[in-house]
Amino acid sequence: MSSSFGRVFRVTTFGESHGAGIGVVIDGCPPRVPVSVEEVQRELDRRRPGQSDIVTTRNEADAVEILSGLHEGVTLGTPIAMVVRNTDARPSAYEGMAQAYRPSHADFTYDAKYGIRAPSGGGRASARETIGRVAAAVVARRVIEAIQPGIGILAWVRSIQDIAASVDPSTVRAEDIESNPVRTGDAAAAAVMVDRIKQVRSEGNSVGGVVECVIRHVPAGLGEPVFDKLEADLAKAMMSIPATKGFEIGSGFAGTRMTGREHNDPFRMIDGKVRTVSNRSGGVQGGISNGEDIVFRVAFKPTATILTPQQTVTSAGEDAELAGKGRHDACVLPRAVPIVEAMAALVICDHLLRQRTIL
Amino acid sequence: MSSSFGRVFRVTTFGESHGAGIGVVIDGCPPRVPVSVEEVQRELDRRRPGQSDIVTTRNEADAVEILSGLHEGVTLGTPIAMVVRNTDARPSAYEGMAQAYRPSHADFTYDAKYGIRAPSGGGRASARETIGRVAAAVVARRVIEAIQPGIGILAWVRSIQDIAASVDPSTVRAEDIESNPVRTGDAAAAAVMVDRIKQVRSEGNSVGGVVECVIRHVPAGLGEPVFDKLEADLAKAMMSIPATKGFEIGSGFAGTRMTGREHNDPFRMIDGKVRTVSNRSGGVQGGISNGEDIVFRVAFKPTATILTPQQTVTSAGEDAELAGKGRHDACVLPRAVPIVEAMAALVICDHLLRQRTIL
Amino acid sequence: MSSSFGRVFRVTTFGESHGAGIGVVIDGCPPRVPVSVEEVQRELDRRRPGQSDIVTTRNEADAVEILSGLHEGVTLGTPIAMVVRNTDARPSAYEGMAQAYRPSHADFTYDAKYGIRAPSGGGRASARETIGRVAAAVVARRVIEAIQPGIGILAWVRSIQDIAASVDPSTVRAEDIESNPVRTGDAAAAAVMVDRIKQVRSEGNSVGGVVECVIRHVPAGLGEPVFDKLEADLAKAMMSIPATKGFEIGSGFAGTRMTGREHNDPFRMIDGKVRTVSNRSGGVQGGISNGEDIVFRVAFKPTATILTPQQTVTSAGEDAELAGKGRHDACVLPRAVPIVEAMAALVICDHLLRQRTIL
Amino acid sequence: MSSSFGRVFRVTTFGESHGAGIGVVIDGCPPRVPVSVEEVQRELDRRRPGQSDIVTTRNEADAVEILSGLHEGVTLGTPIAMVVRNTDARPSAYEGMAQAYRPSHADFTYDAKYGIRAPSGGGRASARETIGRVAAAVVARRVIEAIQPGIGILAWVRSIQDIAASVDPSTVRAEDIESNPVRTGDAAAAAVMVDRIKQVRSEGNSVGGVVECVIRHVPAGLGEPVFDKLEADLAKAMMSIPATKGFEIGSGFAGTRMTGREHNDPFRMIDGKVRTVSNRSGGVQGGISNGEDIVFRVAFKPTATILTPQQTVTSAGEDAELAGKGRHDACVLPRAVPIVEAMAALVICDHLLRQRTIL
Repeated sequence: MSSSFGRVFRVTTFGESHGAGIGVVIDGCPPRVPVSVEEVQRELDRRRPGQSDIVTTRNEADAVEILSGLHEGVTLGTPIAMVVRNTDARPSAYEGMAQAYRPSHADFTYDAKYGIRAPSGGGRASARETIGRVAAAVVARRVIEAIQPGIGILAWVRSIQDIAASVDPSTVRAEDIESNPVRTGDAAAAAVMVDRIKQVRSEGNSVGGVVECVIRHVPAGLGEPVFDKLEADLAKAMMSIPATKGFEIGSGFAGTRMTGREHNDPFRMIDGKVRTVSNRSGGVQGGISNGEDIVFRVAFKPTATILTPQQTVTSAGEDAELAGKGRHDACVLPRAVPIVEAMAALVICDHLLRQRTIL
Repeated sequence: MSSSFGRVFRVTTFGESHGAGIGVVIDGCPPRVPVSVEEVQRELDRRRPGQSDIVTTRNEADAVEILSGLHEGVTLGTPIAMVVRNTDARPSAYEGMAQAYRPSHADFTYDAKYGIRAPSGGGRASARETIGRVAAAVVARRVIEAIQPGIGILAWVRSIQDIAASVDPSTVRAEDIESNPVRTGDAAAAAVMVDRIKQVRSEGNSVGGVVECVIRHVPAGLGEPVFDKLEADLAKAMMSIPATKGFEIGSGFAGTRMTGREHNDPFRMIDGKVRTVSNRSGGVQGGISNGEDIVFRVAFKPTATILTPQQTVTSAGEDAELAGKGRHDACVLPRAVPIVEAMAALVICDHLLRQRTIL
Repeated sequence: MSSSFGRVFRVTTFGESHGAGIGVVIDGCPPRVPVSVEEVQRELDRRRPGQSDIVTTRNEADAVEILSGLHEGVTLGTPIAMVVRNTDARPSAYEGMAQAYRPSHADFTYDAKYGIRAPSGGGRASARETIGRVAAAVVARRVIEAIQPGIGILAWVRSIQDIAASVDPSTVRAEDIESNPVRTGDAAAAAVMVDRIKQVRSEGNSVGGVVECVIRHVPAGLGEPVFDKLEADLAKAMMSIPATKGFEIGSGFAGTRMTGREHNDPFRMIDGKVRTVSNRSGGVQGGISNGEDIVFRVAFKPTATILTPQQTVTSAGEDAELAGKGRHDACVLPRAVPIVEAMAALVICDHLLRQRTIL
Repeated sequence: MSSSFGRVFRVTTFGESHGAGIGVVIDGCPPRVPVSVEEVQRELDRRRPGQSDIVTTRNEADAVEILSGLHEGVTLGTPIAMVVRNTDARPSAYEGMAQAYRPSHADFTYDAKYGIRAPSGGGRASARETIGRVAAAVVARRVIEAIQPGIGILAWVRSIQDIAASVDPSTVRAEDIESNPVRTGDAAAAAVMVDRIKQVRSEGNSVGGVVECVIRHVPAGLGEPVFDKLEADLAKAMMSIPATKGFEIGSGFAGTRMTGREHNDPFRMIDGKVRTVSNRSGGVQGGISNGEDIVFRVAFKPTATILTPQQTVTSAGEDAELAGKGRHDACVLPRAVPIVEAMAALVICDHLLRQRTIL
């Protein structure tokens, strides 16, 4: 188990989906940074189930309590512990699943690793674990603002299956994204996506897609070669989110089809600053930010929970058939958007603080 | 600077491309594991320049010396330090470059981060740094053999630009891959790739591509949720290699176009073991290996060094034109293959040792 | 702020003395280890205020709740979060103190470091923080039992000021120590110590002393040179406890007066095992346990809180006089005993798990 | 094996006493700090054998080479690797010892831990390993100067057996200490100490003692509660030095005999700064420096190598007698002085850099 992330701004999450609660401890947060429980709550509400008719109807209040590290709305420099209690746990909905391994879930691998497993709802492997990450990221954003005002982190759904949104990372705005239940920056595509999601849900099926994220106004110099390169830490952060299968930055996999002459980003002096004319690098060169927009994409597989019968085996080692039931998201992408933003915030905050150890 | 990787099997690399030497220290290597300097040398020769007519002609002996941690061919459990001296450094070949930032290299970002930079040859950002990783990985492979015999790690070039090799990850053999200078598992595609590389080199241009890697016979249970998931650590490892722009595992980005019903891997009991019938998971579920082949792909951008004039700026903040010169690889993919394998070995070795702390 | 301890069995504590709660998260605990909330509670009761008439009368229930990581009395291998809510916080008792720095407390240094400070009761610097350590140590003891049955950790008060108890580390029993309110293994000395503590308390003064600890039946081989030597990690663990000023192992400072001939521990084969005839090494040689009893001592300064007027300065930078008030321990030693044991358990548990990564 | 120390300024040492070489890699050193190989060499010469007639006559040149991380006398921000080759290794002098465990050395415990051991000269447990620490500390001192000019670190021999030097930590100067072969600040005591050391050496015996160290002009605010308190990290650093048995800071063990009224350090405003009138805290309160002199003491046991016959056992498990031979220090204290200073420099440098992550 390794439930800590970050070197200086270090978060440790805890909690099973159907246990007493879910939470996080942040160690290494600088003092005197304003944070309110209300803004943490607001962000948790963004990733919470039951927000619209295209996501799971499980309805948790997900009310956060801050146990330590704050006094009168300001950080103390001491560990910040935050807890969300599980109130809508319905272990019974998962009965039967305890025996048959759900395909493409973590049931079997947790048993293989630990020889034991929380009996219902995915336990630690549930996406509910990300509550702690999202809560911590609100604090991370406040720290970022305090150190380097102006950095903006924004994610959106880039595609659902083959339906691609047309979004310009350099101009898309939060209100565009939040204006539709899919959380994409292209209203026309959003409508098509909603239809697709409703359709596959009605079939008991599910879909995946790609989330894209931009981080704007990052100063040049963040990232620590040779192993903690900025893109390496972003890749790890994103690939630690449940259901992710891929990460790419800048030109990504498509860039492998170009020649160097097409791909290189020429430098020019613009307004007295070193800038690149194009941004196939995605804002990072040699593992270090170059001052351009950081742009990356994360692949999410179709939700593993489907409501049609599937072949599987039981924990007793016998072939079986499993008919899915219970609540589920036919598409996790809309709820993944704030989680991608959260992990990006944790990485940027940590590297901003790490950069301060350079003279 | 963060030049250490791994939690238990921990490697720290050091060295600039044109300084006195390049090397690595391994801390946390178990004792009584047989390792010979000859096998380290053999693997370094695989990633060395000057092996064939499609890679850079820089010809370094890259002779490794083991300074500590071994006695009579067996590890002591103490830190293993290995050094390769730089013998073919030609600072003069890089003169002029010290002033103009090479586009899509790390010259500008190193200056932005550190306010200083090794004056020639890429310094720490040079791919020469990976010598330490490759040397350490030889030791990692011996440890893996000692703990879990039978694990095999094999990488190959999957594509160069639009030229895709047809390779079956479950059956491809090392001798197939090493039989051609491109290091791919498809002889027909190899010939086309060689032609393409020679052509772009003759034009002073460069190309990129995708390396694919399989790790076979990994036991179920490796990987540490929620942050040190196996795919997250693999992603970080790969994205820390110079020139990488993307990582995907199993179905990857293509999997986002499928539905859950198509994508899920059904379980079946086969020969008394829990197996999946398909492997869109890529050998990892919930961040933990499931016993199937681990299959992932890494995107490498076209080499940034090209020999045609490019727009850039100088460290003095003036627009300039840079005409590349010096030795360079028109395509790094063949030499990237052993580096991808090396990073995979470091991740697997570390997680095998970490798993031993589980009762 | 660095509130994490341990490499494999890693605890992170959180909480201020007068905030919402105090707690701990354990990451890296092996699965399938039996732990009950009752035994955690029992150990917290040992270090709790208000147990006898020689310690502070602050009376907190200190009721622990386990939020995660356990299912039906067994660890899951996932993070274990435990919280104790602060119920008897009386901020008013500390009013006035917010302005004048209490001498030999951490008020001034926290302000110097963070530029902010929890306003009452010591905040993070309060010994109340050790609740998290003690709770985690109960889990650590269960892990130790599961891996290496028979290890025993026992601490006692060795001296209060000049009053020295006569205790044989190799034979003293828990019931001897718990039979008196001072927690020493010498009933006669205990009586004298109680009188001394009552006397200084009646004078509004305080005393310190030395706690001694033995760890029995540790297998040879624990400890990781060259920096994480067993005695080095024990020293750090003990010196992280509030009010400590010194640590020594085996012969300690007194051993510096001997010659090598007197000091060396001869080896002999006894019952087929390599044993030392004497134990001036204190159970550790070259940073690694040698199978003998590990014996060390920790110096605790007299409690900084006294009830007589003292010279000090205010946070506004003016000389002032401070007359202490509020509840306080005239002697922390009895309550320090379980904390010393707790930190010893954390170190041993961590090193037992680390040793498993050695082939 | 854990051969790394420090969180931000992180050193990793390597090397066995009779292998190819000894060295260190520093990761996390800030860029643009001037360091010369000559000053590293000068400090290594201080801890080198063969400097005077009271230490071992083993005569190694101990010539250091810097392999990376420096360019034209300035740090690059990249890892700094330094190596000293072993030139005077005489494995034959240690023959026979490979079989019989030397009492109070690490021979037996290394075998117990690793099941293998470098065959001669103490291997990794040799004090020769500290070469890497001393070399790294020279760089640490330059970083300290660059960040916080004026900090001074000075250690000396406080006692040899019962011979105590009279030294005032607040006024003693480097030249006083270096003026005598014992490295103490009291010329009269030095003469008595030299006689004692010569006498015990002539008897084939050995002695121990106490080293004291002062760190002056440390700003208030260094140290990271609750586990990485400044005294906790100093304690760990010192207890990781070979042959140490105890650590105390400020009033230390003697302070346990005082009452709180006697022990507390009153605050006063002096020259516009918050100061303490006395310094029983030893410069640290609540784990954080308070701006006063940091004063601590380290107990060194008598050298384990003696030249008279001792009872022991062999690695084959048979009782035996061992007659010491070879070169040895009858008293390590003079050579321990620069090592204590080195470890203090590593701790202060690391915490200075860590403090920069506080806003």
